[in-house]
Amino acid sequence: MKKLFLLAIAFMAMGLVMSAQGVFLAPTVASPEIAKDGSVTFKLKAPAADSVRLIIDSRVDTLMKRTGNETWSITLRDLEPDLYMYYYIVDGLKVLDQENAQVLRDVKTVMSTFVLDPKGDSPVATHDVPHGKVEAVWYDSPTLKTKRRMMVYLPAGYDEGRQKYPVFYLLHGTGGDETVWLEQGHAAQVLDNLIAEGKAEPMIVVMPNGHTDTPAAPGLGPNSNEQPTFAHKQWMEGTFESSFNDIVSWIDNNYRTRAAKRYRAIAGLSMGGYHTLYISANQPDDFAYVGLFSAAIGRMDQGKSKIYDDLEDKLITQFKQRPRLYWIGIGKDDFLYKDNVNFRGMMDKNRLRYTYYESGAGHEWANWRDYLVIFTQLLFK
Amino acid sequence: MKKLFLLAIAFMAMGLVMSAQGVFLAPTVASPEIAKDGSVTFKLKAPAADSVRLIIDSRVDTLMKRTGNETWSITLRDLEPDLYMYYYIVDGLKVLDQENAQVLRDVKTVMSTFVLDPKGDSPVATHDVPHGKVEAVWYDSPTLKTKRRMMVYLPAGYDEGRQKYPVFYLLHGTGGDETVWLEQGHAAQVLDNLIAEGKAEPMIVVMPNGHTDTPAAPGLGPNSNEQPTFAHKQWMEGTFESSFNDIVSWIDNNYRTRAAKRYRAIAGLSMGGYHTLYISANQPDDFAYVGLFSAAIGRMDQGKSKIYDDLEDKLITQFKQRPRLYWIGIGKDDFLYKDNVNFRGMMDKNRLRYTYYESGAGHEWANWRDYLVIFTQLLFK
Repeated sequence: MKKLFLLAIAFMAMGLVMSAQGVFLAPTVASPEIAKDGSVTFKLKAPAADSVRLIIDSRVDTLMKRTGNETWSITLRDLEPDLYMYYYIVDGLKVLDQENAQVLRDVKTVMSTFVLDPKGDSPVATHDVPHGKVEAVWYDSPTLKTKRRMMVYLPAGYDEGRQKYPVFYLLHGTGGDETVWLEQGHAAQVLDNLIAEGKAEPMIVVMPNGHTDTPAAPGLGPNSNEQPTFAHKQWMEGTFESSFNDIVSWIDNNYRTRAAKRYRAIAGLSMGGYHTLYISANQPDDFAYVGLFSAAIGRMDQGKSKIYDDLEDKLITQFKQRPRLYWIGIGKDDFLYKDNVNFRGMMDKNRLRYTYYESGAGHEWANWRDYLVIFTQLLFK
Repeated sequence: MKKLFLLAIAFMAMGLVMSAQGVFLAPTVASPEIAKDGSVTFKLKAPAADSVRLIIDSRVDTLMKRTGNETWSITLRDLEPDLYMYYYIVDGLKVLDQENAQVLRDVKTVMSTFVLDPKGDSPVATHDVPHGKVEAVWYDSPTLKTKRRMMVYLPAGYDEGRQKYPVFYLLHGTGGDETVWLEQGHAAQVLDNLIAEGKAEPMIVVMPNGHTDTPAAPGLGPNSNEQPTFAHKQWMEGTFESSFNDIVSWIDNNYRTRAAKRYRAIAGLSMGGYHTLYISANQPDDFAYVGLFSAAIGRMDQGKSKIYDDLEDKLITQFKQRPRLYWIGIGKDDFLYKDNVNFRGMMDKNRLRYTYYESGAGHEWANWRDYLVIFTQLLFK
């Protein structure tokens, strides 16, 4: 009787939302199933479908096979340990894995997700190590005259001592927001793991929102009735770069930071790499470590803001003080590859020394997690 | 040329993940569209579909109409301001709103979501008020011999002063985890708004994970390869209640709390209400404010742990010290309604005084957000 009651509660609580419909109550298939050897089996129950495709990031696009009356399935055996995002196309309609409750958003596309870590050693997976804490905070931006949201990672032990920490400012791309380095980048896991292994210095990581026309990630700011457009008016027109000191001041005032150039790093992906380029070039006294991840360098004559004027001269000034690290990473297939070649040509011509890392693949998160793991280990040594 | 470049970046960055497929690049319909009068229009592009249904929580289940060659649509005019979760059923397959990037998970079901706040006064919406901060922390549980994750809300101003704050422990149901009161409950928004309006006292809100067999929400703990079962072995068998003091001690050690019964509240929904009932009855010296939200009271003879023995006697002892508030809320259509009637009968028989709030509807988040708004205003006055 007791068991029956417990079962009843479990059944009702779990079937709750859809109980009126009865559609999802029946036990179905498990998906994805990760075997000990790291092979992954995807299954979808779609009896009426004519065709089902599986799309994983830019890495996999394959037809699934009917394996039974109702179920479509495929097993992949050669996936690297990493975070994956995927969905199905059922007769032209995008469908999430109905059996996987874990999802992430990329720009405006929501996908099913899982972390593959068969040997328990992926830097992007959660391991049993001391964990830092992550804070969602709102700061005042006097320049922008508004409150804005950002995420702050504090390393394990921060609350136990009086130690001061170096700060790493980590910027997102045009499709992202303050949450994306945590959610798709698994920045907290990467930092926890690298610090625990002694591969990275304990540091504070600050992840602001780079779109100054939105105070927070979609759904988290005021005006919740507004549908996010994902096409920002303010992104590479100078406002973020010009107001960046509001963030640095707020961080230095609210956390135990080592508030000096030697202990400050800045890096960003795509648009965030563009922001990083101009913030660090305009503030040569502020950042000793600079990282351009698949940076949207493109033109250097945007001209909408003084921030973008005279980049070459500004870089020469910046490099007279020899940054401790100027790191450029890009994938061979990135649509920004050629712009980065041109940028490096200009750097070479002026004998400005940088570290260059060329990966495979293109403009994608698999690269950016990789770059984060590499770059973070080079900081504050 | 500059514009062309910007457009190219926007296009490529936004179409990135699916650029290989080209499926989602074309501009499509906007959905949901919220009009100024609060009416909401849902649209789905599904040219090949035979039927499309819209499901919103337990509140709406309706067929959509073909409105054009490719698009299905419906407008709803009588939705209350609140957070909504919804999905479509296209020929039997569950599909999210392809135009809405905001999603939430309920147990193992992922749904599209939006906040409806046409007048800008819903307590669950983000408004332009001082915002508290939210921390994701890992604490050590000596009793369970493991690190566990929880969320902590700190009210606006916490970092600016040396003031000590009362603490409200807020527990989730069997389908939830440490994130659910923030994500579906919008607890941070509710607290920000009520505190800003002077309706609630500034307080710390602690949201632990009530399943002692999992250290964190799905995907956030170690062993990422494991598919979460959503059928927990440890939930109402005493381990959470028995180890609860680990949380209280950790919070009192790590935050500026008023560490006394008069300044501690505890409440929970469903399984969390059950946890609340037994934790507060077993620790009569610890919590002055108790809230049972649609509590899974059920049987009082679980008997697996001493925690559950002699509840009636324990309650009599607890009430000898007169809790400042003992609050019971439940919906008329809740499957636990009768169990709550029986429980209140036992309370009445023993003349144990509680505040009773009966709402419409059943075992669902619309009620729990409502209970949170009501209960929080009664605390620490």
